[in-house]
Amino acid sequence: MSVLGLIAGGGDLPPAVARSVRESGRAVFVVALAGSTGGDWVQDYPHEILSPGEPGRIIRALKAHGVHEVLLCGRVDRPKFSEMKLDAKGMLLLPKAIAAAKKGDDALLRFIVGICEDEGLVALSVAEAAPGLVCRDGAVGAMTPSPDHRADIAAAFAIVRALGALDVGQAAVVCEGLALAVEAAEGTDAMLARIETLRESLRGTAARRRGVLVKALKPTQDAKTDMPVVGVATVRNAHAAHLSGIALEAGQALILDRAAVAAEADRLGLFVVGVIP
Amino acid sequence: MSVLGLIAGGGDLPPAVARSVRESGRAVFVVALAGSTGGDWVQDYPHEILSPGEPGRIIRALKAHGVHEVLLCGRVDRPKFSEMKLDAKGMLLLPKAIAAAKKGDDALLRFIVGICEDEGLVALSVAEAAPGLVCRDGAVGAMTPSPDHRADIAAAFAIVRALGALDVGQAAVVCEGLALAVEAAEGTDAMLARIETLRESLRGTAARRRGVLVKALKPTQDAKTDMPVVGVATVRNAHAAHLSGIALEAGQALILDRAAVAAEADRLGLFVVGVIP
Repeated sequence: MSVLGLIAGGGDLPPAVARSVRESGRAVFVVALAGSTGGDWVQDYPHEILSPGEPGRIIRALKAHGVHEVLLCGRVDRPKFSEMKLDAKGMLLLPKAIAAAKKGDDALLRFIVGICEDEGLVALSVAEAAPGLVCRDGAVGAMTPSPDHRADIAAAFAIVRALGALDVGQAAVVCEGLALAVEAAEGTDAMLARIETLRESLRGTAARRRGVLVKALKPTQDAKTDMPVVGVATVRNAHAAHLSGIALEAGQALILDRAAVAAEADRLGLFVVGVIP
Repeated sequence: MSVLGLIAGGGDLPPAVARSVRESGRAVFVVALAGSTGGDWVQDYPHEILSPGEPGRIIRALKAHGVHEVLLCGRVDRPKFSEMKLDAKGMLLLPKAIAAAKKGDDALLRFIVGICEDEGLVALSVAEAAPGLVCRDGAVGAMTPSPDHRADIAAAFAIVRALGALDVGQAAVVCEGLALAVEAAEGTDAMLARIETLRESLRGTAARRRGVLVKALKPTQDAKTDMPVVGVATVRNAHAAHLSGIALEAGQALILDRAAVAAEADRLGLFVVGVIP
């Protein structure tokens, strides 16, 4: 199999993907996006650090390392175009990139993937490159949702779908029929952190957990670029928000380190479940 | 004209309504809902303080004061039914009230209004009882939105409508095409407060204001019970979030003290505008 080209944004997903791909016996070359990719993990792989404004250099680096298949994942901050390092191709494409960025983060991701495809590279989804990370139907740990939890899960999926169609967010928290929080630009962790600031009558407590977190792919999103992701940190944050559990769409979400997520969910008494909504 | 019965929840709307109605020459009798209504303003009016679990006593008090027309407004906290003071009628209706409360705050408000209507009282909207508070088409102060602001206003209205149809929230903030925040159970002020925690590249700054707040009636809501409300505090909070302005649906939102809102918006350099979306 050819070398996989991983164009890496921020967060825990890119290193999990790199590890999963390498463990499956395939070599990985990483393009770390300057200003987005954090952490030292790229040092473990052949890599270059390049600006999203240098698509010409990105394509040349990928091809020089024998890459035919490419995967873009992780969080890409909306760049400050005025401060961005640009190569010739970047300057040429800048007006289109700015227009894409104005339409939302997803449009920007699709734009970058599109440039790679125009150059003859094949864009893979995380599910294709690292199938072991995809959430399956059923409980991840020992706990399972009750019928009341199932009703809240269905309500939260309806909210996330409605919002996702408008490219707003990927996540919502519902507690006994009431929407406690909806994600926009702040991200899932910040959304979970504010649950505790709500009136106690609306939410769970340490003594009595209530409410479910649902994360789902936006209908406007391409599974190639931005599946929702749950990791050990998500389980801990849901626990700190006094939630009963987390639900994901089976086949349409990623679980980073399934064994560790199951162990943490069991330890903290939460369910983590893949469902077919 | 008969005495207006004002069943008052929390927030700034009930005192503004009471003042507007009295200034129009009509007498007001206030039922302050125990646990929801705050502040000393009820002392200026004939009133009784009663629990939402005492619908029998509420109806008797209204009728004893010659009330034929009633208006319920202000924030009603989802009650802790186990701790609520109940009269005989309250006990009888409790199962229905709990079922309504589970469907969301709006269902609970509609339930209380329904009890009044079953007893032969006529439920008025704020627009009917205090027409001077209704937002009109056009700018409230001196500032007006630019074409770019208009695009963000349209995007935010689309988000609020989609969410409102699911009984989630009334407000959203959009900045140059990106949804920065969406309101759920935390309320508009808490939503505005978190804008500043977002990455600076996404939002406005003190030096360069960006983004608009839109508040709109939920499609599931009855204008009789819960029109969105903007006051001087909303203008100040939008300013603190570095927004460019606030947009409301003309005829479907309330402005508490229009002159004061216009003066504060002008002082802080924000637009406040009623639009027909």
